[in-house]
Amino acid sequence: MTPERLRALLDEVAAGSLPVDEAERRLAWAPTEDLGFARVDHHRALRHGFPEVVFGLGKTPEQLAMIAARIAARGEGVLATRVDEAAFEPLRAAVPGIRINPLGRTAYLPAAEPVARRTRGSVLIVTAGTSDLPVAEEAADTAAAFGNPVERLTDVGVAGIHRILAAQDTLAGAAVIIVVAGMEGALPSVVGGLVSVPVIAVPTSVGYGAAFGGLSALLGMLNSCASGVTVVNIDNGFGAASAASRINLLPPA
Amino acid sequence: MTPERLRALLDEVAAGSLPVDEAERRLAWAPTEDLGFARVDHHRALRHGFPEVVFGLGKTPEQLAMIAARIAARGEGVLATRVDEAAFEPLRAAVPGIRINPLGRTAYLPAAEPVARRTRGSVLIVTAGTSDLPVAEEAADTAAAFGNPVERLTDVGVAGIHRILAAQDTLAGAAVIIVVAGMEGALPSVVGGLVSVPVIAVPTSVGYGAAFGGLSALLGMLNSCASGVTVVNIDNGFGAASAASRINLLPPA
Amino acid sequence: MTPERLRALLDEVAAGSLPVDEAERRLAWAPTEDLGFARVDHHRALRHGFPEVVFGLGKTPEQLAMIAARIAARGEGVLATRVDEAAFEPLRAAVPGIRINPLGRTAYLPAAEPVARRTRGSVLIVTAGTSDLPVAEEAADTAAAFGNPVERLTDVGVAGIHRILAAQDTLAGAAVIIVVAGMEGALPSVVGGLVSVPVIAVPTSVGYGAAFGGLSALLGMLNSCASGVTVVNIDNGFGAASAASRINLLPPA
Amino acid sequence: MTPERLRALLDEVAAGSLPVDEAERRLAWAPTEDLGFARVDHHRALRHGFPEVVFGLGKTPEQLAMIAARIAARGEGVLATRVDEAAFEPLRAAVPGIRINPLGRTAYLPAAEPVARRTRGSVLIVTAGTSDLPVAEEAADTAAAFGNPVERLTDVGVAGIHRILAAQDTLAGAAVIIVVAGMEGALPSVVGGLVSVPVIAVPTSVGYGAAFGGLSALLGMLNSCASGVTVVNIDNGFGAASAASRINLLPPA
Amino acid sequence: MTPERLRALLDEVAAGSLPVDEAERRLAWAPTEDLGFARVDHHRALRHGFPEVVFGLGKTPEQLAMIAARIAARGEGVLATRVDEAAFEPLRAAVPGIRINPLGRTAYLPAAEPVARRTRGSVLIVTAGTSDLPVAEEAADTAAAFGNPVERLTDVGVAGIHRILAAQDTLAGAAVIIVVAGMEGALPSVVGGLVSVPVIAVPTSVGYGAAFGGLSALLGMLNSCASGVTVVNIDNGFGAASAASRINLLPPA
Amino acid sequence: MTPERLRALLDEVAAGSLPVDEAERRLAWAPTEDLGFARVDHHRALRHGFPEVVFGLGKTPEQLAMIAARIAARGEGVLATRVDEAAFEPLRAAVPGIRINPLGRTAYLPAAEPVARRTRGSVLIVTAGTSDLPVAEEAADTAAAFGNPVERLTDVGVAGIHRILAAQDTLAGAAVIIVVAGMEGALPSVVGGLVSVPVIAVPTSVGYGAAFGGLSALLGMLNSCASGVTVVNIDNGFGAASAASRINLLPPA
Amino acid sequence: MTPERLRALLDEVAAGSLPVDEAERRLAWAPTEDLGFARVDHHRALRHGFPEVVFGLGKTPEQLAMIAARIAARGEGVLATRVDEAAFEPLRAAVPGIRINPLGRTAYLPAAEPVARRTRGSVLIVTAGTSDLPVAEEAADTAAAFGNPVERLTDVGVAGIHRILAAQDTLAGAAVIIVVAGMEGALPSVVGGLVSVPVIAVPTSVGYGAAFGGLSALLGMLNSCASGVTVVNIDNGFGAASAASRINLLPPA
Amino acid sequence: MTPERLRALLDEVAAGSLPVDEAERRLAWAPTEDLGFARVDHHRALRHGFPEVVFGLGKTPEQLAMIAARIAARGEGVLATRVDEAAFEPLRAAVPGIRINPLGRTAYLPAAEPVARRTRGSVLIVTAGTSDLPVAEEAADTAAAFGNPVERLTDVGVAGIHRILAAQDTLAGAAVIIVVAGMEGALPSVVGGLVSVPVIAVPTSVGYGAAFGGLSALLGMLNSCASGVTVVNIDNGFGAASAASRINLLPPA
Repeated sequence: MTPERLRALLDEVAAGSLPVDEAERRLAWAPTEDLGFARVDHHRALRHGFPEVVFGLGKTPEQLAMIAARIAARGEGVLATRVDEAAFEPLRAAVPGIRINPLGRTAYLPAAEPVARRTRGSVLIVTAGTSDLPVAEEAADTAAAFGNPVERLTDVGVAGIHRILAAQDTLAGAAVIIVVAGMEGALPSVVGGLVSVPVIAVPTSVGYGAAFGGLSALLGMLNSCASGVTVVNIDNGFGAASAASRINLLPPA
Repeated sequence: MTPERLRALLDEVAAGSLPVDEAERRLAWAPTEDLGFARVDHHRALRHGFPEVVFGLGKTPEQLAMIAARIAARGEGVLATRVDEAAFEPLRAAVPGIRINPLGRTAYLPAAEPVARRTRGSVLIVTAGTSDLPVAEEAADTAAAFGNPVERLTDVGVAGIHRILAAQDTLAGAAVIIVVAGMEGALPSVVGGLVSVPVIAVPTSVGYGAAFGGLSALLGMLNSCASGVTVVNIDNGFGAASAASRINLLPPA
Repeated sequence: MTPERLRALLDEVAAGSLPVDEAERRLAWAPTEDLGFARVDHHRALRHGFPEVVFGLGKTPEQLAMIAARIAARGEGVLATRVDEAAFEPLRAAVPGIRINPLGRTAYLPAAEPVARRTRGSVLIVTAGTSDLPVAEEAADTAAAFGNPVERLTDVGVAGIHRILAAQDTLAGAAVIIVVAGMEGALPSVVGGLVSVPVIAVPTSVGYGAAFGGLSALLGMLNSCASGVTVVNIDNGFGAASAASRINLLPPA
Repeated sequence: MTPERLRALLDEVAAGSLPVDEAERRLAWAPTEDLGFARVDHHRALRHGFPEVVFGLGKTPEQLAMIAARIAARGEGVLATRVDEAAFEPLRAAVPGIRINPLGRTAYLPAAEPVARRTRGSVLIVTAGTSDLPVAEEAADTAAAFGNPVERLTDVGVAGIHRILAAQDTLAGAAVIIVVAGMEGALPSVVGGLVSVPVIAVPTSVGYGAAFGGLSALLGMLNSCASGVTVVNIDNGFGAASAASRINLLPPA
Repeated sequence: MTPERLRALLDEVAAGSLPVDEAERRLAWAPTEDLGFARVDHHRALRHGFPEVVFGLGKTPEQLAMIAARIAARGEGVLATRVDEAAFEPLRAAVPGIRINPLGRTAYLPAAEPVARRTRGSVLIVTAGTSDLPVAEEAADTAAAFGNPVERLTDVGVAGIHRILAAQDTLAGAAVIIVVAGMEGALPSVVGGLVSVPVIAVPTSVGYGAAFGGLSALLGMLNSCASGVTVVNIDNGFGAASAASRINLLPPA
Repeated sequence: MTPERLRALLDEVAAGSLPVDEAERRLAWAPTEDLGFARVDHHRALRHGFPEVVFGLGKTPEQLAMIAARIAARGEGVLATRVDEAAFEPLRAAVPGIRINPLGRTAYLPAAEPVARRTRGSVLIVTAGTSDLPVAEEAADTAAAFGNPVERLTDVGVAGIHRILAAQDTLAGAAVIIVVAGMEGALPSVVGGLVSVPVIAVPTSVGYGAAFGGLSALLGMLNSCASGVTVVNIDNGFGAASAASRINLLPPA
Repeated sequence: MTPERLRALLDEVAAGSLPVDEAERRLAWAPTEDLGFARVDHHRALRHGFPEVVFGLGKTPEQLAMIAARIAARGEGVLATRVDEAAFEPLRAAVPGIRINPLGRTAYLPAAEPVARRTRGSVLIVTAGTSDLPVAEEAADTAAAFGNPVERLTDVGVAGIHRILAAQDTLAGAAVIIVVAGMEGALPSVVGGLVSVPVIAVPTSVGYGAAFGGLSALLGMLNSCASGVTVVNIDNGFGAASAASRINLLPPA
Repeated sequence: MTPERLRALLDEVAAGSLPVDEAERRLAWAPTEDLGFARVDHHRALRHGFPEVVFGLGKTPEQLAMIAARIAARGEGVLATRVDEAAFEPLRAAVPGIRINPLGRTAYLPAAEPVARRTRGSVLIVTAGTSDLPVAEEAADTAAAFGNPVERLTDVGVAGIHRILAAQDTLAGAAVIIVVAGMEGALPSVVGGLVSVPVIAVPTSVGYGAAFGGLSALLGMLNSCASGVTVVNIDNGFGAASAASRINLLPPA
C-alpha cells in the first residue's frame, strides 16, 4: 500500500465510487487466508514477484502437504524447501505433478501459466566441494523456480587454486554468482576478487571438529577480504537464490 | 586474464608480433607495485570498476598517508575507511584536497577526471537508530565514491513500526537498500518484506550486555524470516556499499 | 512462615497452648513428602496459587507416572510438561482421566473441585510461524490450567508485517501477551511497540544454521528495542505462561 | 490505529466531514518529528502511557542534550538513561531543572503537570550485592518516573540465605519484584519460590573470569528452576522497570 | 620416587647391594603393563590409595571388559564408570561377581581382601532434582568404592528453599558435601553458605535451551557467591567423589 | 540454627526462661547490620570460622573503606581482595594498621586477639609461570589470613616437566595443594597424578589469543584426566584458598 | 607452473616447436577431470608428492566408490578417510584389493608400482588414552600411505607422568612426532618440552561436558606453553600425518 | 635424561667413579636457577637447541629486565618477545647491546660466540595484509635468532589472487613457509595447495566485528581444505617460528 495507492483509494471513497466497506477491507490487508496453524498469503506473489514458498523444517509431512495443496489450488505454483524424505509421498499425493529433487530436498510445481521473466543474465552457482552439492541444488532449484537461467561450477575449492582460475570465463559470463562452501569458506574471497558482479556467499555445515556446524565458514565469509561479498545463513541455498533473484530479475518491460 | 585474451596473446607470440619478454611480463600480472609493507594494485580499478580503497584499521597514520598519497598520484581517486582521528592531519598533508568525514571516519579524494556511472537507481541507506549513524555514513560515503546516487532514511526502528510504514514510498523508490541496525537487528526483516529490490543488512555493534558487540544483530539478520536479505560483517558499512555498487552499477553504454 | 505467623506460634508455645514437639515440626517446614527420588510438595499450591506441575524432561515414564499419580491422589490437579510420547500410556494408566495434548506435549488433570480464578483478562499467545506451535501449545495449556482465559494469534511473523498490523484489535484486547518466535525473534519488538500491556517473549529453537538452537532468537529478544519486553528460556512455553499467570491472576475477592 | 478508529475515519471521509488531505495525514502516522539524526515521537506517550525516554549509550553529549531539550519543550517530561558523566553539564544547560543521579546514570525531568497513576502497589527492587546498585538505581529511577511507588531491599545474596528469608514480609508486600544480581544469578530463583507476584530478573555484569560480562548470571536466570521468572538484558535496569510498569500500572479510573 | 627413595637406591647401588640392572628397572617406573591399546597401571593403587578405575566412554564393550578383567585378576578391585548398557553382559562375563548399577552406569568389583579406610566422616551427596540422580549415583558408587560412608539428600532445589533449610542437620553432619544440580546450578551457593565443610559442586546437563548442555549450571557454580565452593566437569560424578575421597580419607593409623 | 539449637530455644520459651521477644529476635537472624548499600554480617565469622571478607571489585574506594572500617571496629579482623590501587590510601586511612599487598591486591588486618587454628598441615601454592603470581599471592594471603601455614612453589610449568618432578618432596609434604596456571592449564593434571592429597586448580587469565581470557585454562582444568582435581573461577585465588581452608582447618580441639 | 616453466613454454611457442593449441591447453591447467559432482585432479600427485586422497565425510557410499575407482584406474594408489561402515562393501566392490581399517575408518590401495621415498626418519604417533586410538590410526594409515615409517606409543597421558617419561628413548628416536589427545590436551606440551623435533598436536573429541566436542583439547594445544607445537583440526589425524609427511619426506636423491 | 645416559650414570656409580652425591644432583635435574618469581633454565638451550626466550606478556618491565640480564650473563644470547614499549629502556639498561624491534615488539641479544646452524633452507614469512606485519616481524626475528635464513613476502591476500600466483617462484624456493593472515584466514589454504613444503599458519587478530579477535582466522586455518597445514595460536609469530626452526634446523654435521 504505497502512498499513491492510499491517496487514490481515499479519493474514491470521498467520491462515493468506493463503498466504505470495501475500502475497509482493502486497508486491512485482507488477502491472508488463515488455516489455523498457518496463514497463506495470496498477495505475496504480487508484492515480491515470486511464487509462494513453503519452508519444510519443523512442519509435519501432513502440514506441509496441506499448505502446498492450498497454494497449488490457486494455480500460481509452489516451491517447498527442506523437505524431509517422509514428506515426499504426502506431497506427491496432495499436489499432483509436483517435482521432487531428493539431493536438494526441494519440491516444485510451476505455475499453471508460467510468466516469462526478464533478467540481467544467468545465476551461476559455484561449489567448493562435492559435499556442498545439496545446498547448491537447493539454490539452483530456487533460482530456476523464480525464473532465472541457472549455471553450475562444481568442486573448485581454493586448495587447488588452478581449478577456479581455469573457469574464469564461466565466472565472467554470469550476472550474479552464488558461492557455496564449507570448512574455511575461502572460495567467495577468491571469486569476489576475480569478478565485479554481485557475489553471494553461502556457508555450509560441511566439515567437522572446529568447523562447528558451519560457524567457521560463516565467519570466514563475513570477514572476507574481498569487498562486496554478502552472506546468508549456513546451508541457506534458498535465501541466496532469493537474493540473487532480487538482483537479477528486471521489471516487466 | 580470460581465455580469449590468453589465446590472443599466444597467437601474437606465435606470430612474432609479441616478444617473449613482453608476454612473460603480462602473464605474470605485473601491475602490482611493492611499497615494502603493502602492494598497491594499479589494475584493481580496471578489474572492479572502483577506485582503490585503503582500509585504515591497523595501519599507522604514516602508513595510511603514504599509501593514499601513492594512489592519489595516479589521479584515479582514493577512498580511505576506518580513519582514526590521529590520521586526519597526516592525510590532509599527504593528499591535498582530500575530504574527511569525521562521523563516518572516511577520507575521500575524487578522481582527477571523474567518470559518470550508469546505475539502476539510487542506494537507500536505512538506519534503525541514531547510534547506527557512523556505520551508515561509512556506507553512504562509499556508495557515493563509487558513483551511486545515495538517499537516507534514519531512526525508523521496529519498536515504532509506524515510522518505517510511513516511509514506504521512499523504500519503493530505491534500486538497492542497505539497512543498518544494532540490538536485535530486526529492521531488515521488516524492510525485506515490504520491498522486492535487493536488501543488504549491516549489523552494528550498538547495544550492550547480550548484544555481545553486534553478535545479536548479526545472528538476527542471518536468520531473517524475510527471504533474500543478505548480510555483511558487523559495522561493515563499506562492504555493504561495495555490494550495493556491484548490484547498482551498469556496464558502460 | 511470615513474621506474624512466627510471632503467633511462639506466643502459643509460651502460653502452653502449643506443645514444643508440634512447634518444632511446624518450623521444620514439614509438608514435603519424600518419594526417595523426588519430594512432592503438598504446600506449593497454597503458596503459589497454582496446582503442582511435573517437568517431564529427564524423568523416566515410570517416574513421571508415579509422581503424577501421587499428586493426583490429593485431588488438586496436576499438569505435566515435556511429556515424551513413551509416557502417554503410563500416565493414562496411572492417572485416569488425564488429558494429553500431543502437539504441546502436556498432560493435565483438573482439580476435583476446580476453583474459579479472578483475572485481569485473557492471555493472548502470538506465534510467528507454524513451527512455533508446539511451544505455543505448551504455553496455552499451562495458562488454561492455571485458570486464565486463553486466546491465540498464529503465523504473524514480521516478514509480512501487515499480518500483525491487521490484528491490532486482538492485541489491544489482551491483558497479557506471550509472543513465541524463532529465527531472528523480532516479533516481540513489534508487538511491544504496538501495545502497552505486559509482553513476554519466548524464543524457540526453530531455525537452522546460525539460529544455534534458539540462541539467535533469544539474543534478539533480550536486545529488543521495545522497552518492557521480558524473556524466558528457549522453548519455555510453560515458564512464559507461569509468568503470565502471576501477572493476570487477581487475589480472591 | 485500531479497526474501530479506521472505520470511524473512513465514515467521516465518506460523509464529507473529514477532508481527504487530513485523512491522508492521519493515516500516515504523522506525529514523528525528524531531527535529521533522530525521530522524536510525540505520540509515544499516548500510546504507551509513559514519558519519552532517551537512551544515552552511543549518543554524543550534544545529541543527547538536543533530543532531551526538544522533548522537554513539550512539557511532558523526559527520562534519559545511560548518561555519561560528560553529558551531565550539557543536559543541565539544555534542560533546566533536570535531576541527575550519578550512581544510576539517569537524568529526569518530570512533566510540567504530572498525572497521578493508579497502580496495583509498589515495585520492590532487590539486589544481591553492593556492586549491583547502579543497575538497581537505574531501575528505581525509571519505575518512579513512570509513576510507580518504589521500595528497595539490598545486599541479600543467596550465600547468606537468612538475609532474604528475614525479609519475607517486605517481599510479601510488593506488587511486582525486580531482582538484580550478578555472578551466578541465583537470587531470582529463591525469590520466585517465596512469592506469587511477578518476578523480573536483571542479570548484571558484576563478576569476573567465567562471569563473562554477565553471561553467567543471564544463563542462570533463564534457566531458573522457579517457574514464572522472566528476564531482561544484562544491566538493563530500565527495561526491567518498564516491564514492571506495564504490570503495575492500572488504566485510569 | 621421592628424593629420599632416590638417595637410598643410589646408596644401595654404590654399596653393590643393588644390581645396576635392577636399579635401572626401578628408575624407569616399570610397573605399567602394556595391553597394546591401553596401559594398566598396577602401581596406581599404591600411589593414590584408590583401586584402579576404568573410564568407559569411548571404549568398546570388548575393550572395557578386557581391561576390567586384567585388573580384577590382581585381586585389588575395579570400578568402571560411564558403562553403556551394551557393556553390561560382556563385563559380567569377563568379571564374575561384578555389580552393575544401571542408573549410575557403574560397575564395581570390590577387592578380594578389602582394606578398611579411616575417614573424617561421611560424604553427603545432595541433588537439586530428580533428573540429577544418575550423576549423583555415579558419585555415590565411586565414593563407596573408595571406602567412604555415603549419605544422600535428594530433590532439594532452591525454588523451594525450605526443603534445603529443613535438612540443615543432615548438612551439618557431613564431612564433605557433593552438590549435584543442573539448570541454573544455584544450590551449591546456598549449601556453601550454610556449612563450613568442603563443598564440591557438580553441574549436570539437565535442562534445555539456554542450559546449553550444562554450561549454564557450570558457569553458575564457578561464579558462586559462596566462597570455598569448587567445581568439577559437567556430569562428572566420578570426579567429585574422587576429590571428596582425597579430602575425607585419612592416612592409615 | 541447627535443629538442636531450635529445640533448646523452644524449650526455653516453653519453660518461660526465654522471653518471646528475645526468641523472635534470634529466630529472625538479626545479626545483619544494614549500611544502606551493604549488609555487614557479624555472625558470619561464627558460622564459617573465617573473618569477614570484603570483595573489592565493583565497589568504590569509599564504599570499600567504609565497609572495612565497620568490620574492623568489631576487632575480629578483615580481609579485602581485588583492591584497586586507588583504594590503598582510603583503606589505610580508615583502617589503621591494615597491611596492603600490591602484587596480590589484598589488604588484611588481623583480629585483635588472633585465634590459633588447628590444621591438617600446610597449604602449598604452585604456579606454572611468573605471570600467575598475582593470583597466587591472593590465594596465599587468603590462606594465611584464615589461619593456614602457607608454602609456595613457583614457575614449574609442564613444558619443562623436570621442574615439577624435581619438587616431588615439596608436593608430598603438603596437606592441600592449590595449582595456579594459565594458558593450557595442564599443570594440575600432572600434580594430581603425583599426589594423593586434595588438589584445587585455579585457571588464570594469563595468555593471549585463543586463551580467551582464561577460558582455555579453565576448560583444560575441568577436563583434567587426573581424577579428583576441582576447579574455581578464573583468577579466583581467594576462592581456592577458601576451599583449601575448609579442607585444612580442623575443629577446635 | 613456475616462472621458469612459463619461460620455457613461451620460448617453445615463439620457436614454433610448441603449437598454440597445446600451449593454451597447458596454461589452462587442464589435468582436472570433471565427474559432474567432483573434479579428480590427476596432477595433484605430481605437485604434492602424494597419492590422491578422498575425504569420505558427506559423500554417499556410491559417490565415494565411484571417485575411488576412477583414481585407482590410473594405477597411482588411493587413500580414503572418514569412511563410514556403509561404504566398506561398495569400496571393496569398486576397487579390488583395497585395504580397509575399521578402527581408523580408512581404505587404502597402494600404487601399482610403489615409489620408495627418502625420509628423515620415522613418524611417531603418541596417544594419551585408549579412546584416542581411532584418530591415531587415521594418522598412522595416512603417514604409511605417504611413504613414512610409522611408530606408535599409546596410553601415556599426563595424569601418570611416569608413562611418558619412561618412553623418552622412543621419543628421542623419532623424526617427527604426532601427539593425539582429548580432554585437556596437555600431552603435547609435555612432549614438546622433552624433544627438539617437530611436534604436531591433534585434539580429539574424546571427553564429555565441558570438553565441548574437542574444543577444550584444541584450546589447550593452541595455548601450549611448549614453544614450537603446531595444531590441526579436532580429530584430524589425516591432516597431522600430511603435515608430518611434508616435514619428513626428502626430495628424490 | 635418556635411558642410555641413565645407564651410563648408574654404571659409573656402581664402578665408584661417580660419587653418590654427584649422581643425586644430576638426577634431580639441578640446572634450574630459582629467582623467586621465575626459574631460569640454563639447560634448555642444550635440550632444545635454542637460546633462552623470555615471554614479556604479564611481566613487569623490571621482572623482564632482571630475567633477561641473568640469562645474558651466561653469554648464550637471549630473545624477549611481547615487549611493551615501557620495557625498552629497562632492557637496554640491563642488557647492553640488546637490539629492540619496535614493530615486532622483540628484543634480541645474540650469543657471545654464535654457533652457525645447518639448515634445510630458508624460512619464508608470507603476510596477507599490511596489518599483519607486527606478527610477521615477531616470527622473522625469532627465526633469525634461532639461526634460520629468513625471507619475506608481504601483502599477498587472496582477494587479489594474482599477487600470490605471481610469487610462485619465491614460494617454491623456501624450505618452510609461515603464512600470517587475519580476517578470514584463507591464504594458508591457497599457499598449501601451491607448495609441498611444510606450511605453518598464524591467525592474527586483525579485523573487526565477526573477526572476534582472530577467532575467525583461527577457525578458517584449522578447517583449511589444503592438507598438511598446521596452526598456532592467534598472533603467535614466535610459536610459528619455533616450529619452523624445529623443522628447518639440521643436527650438527
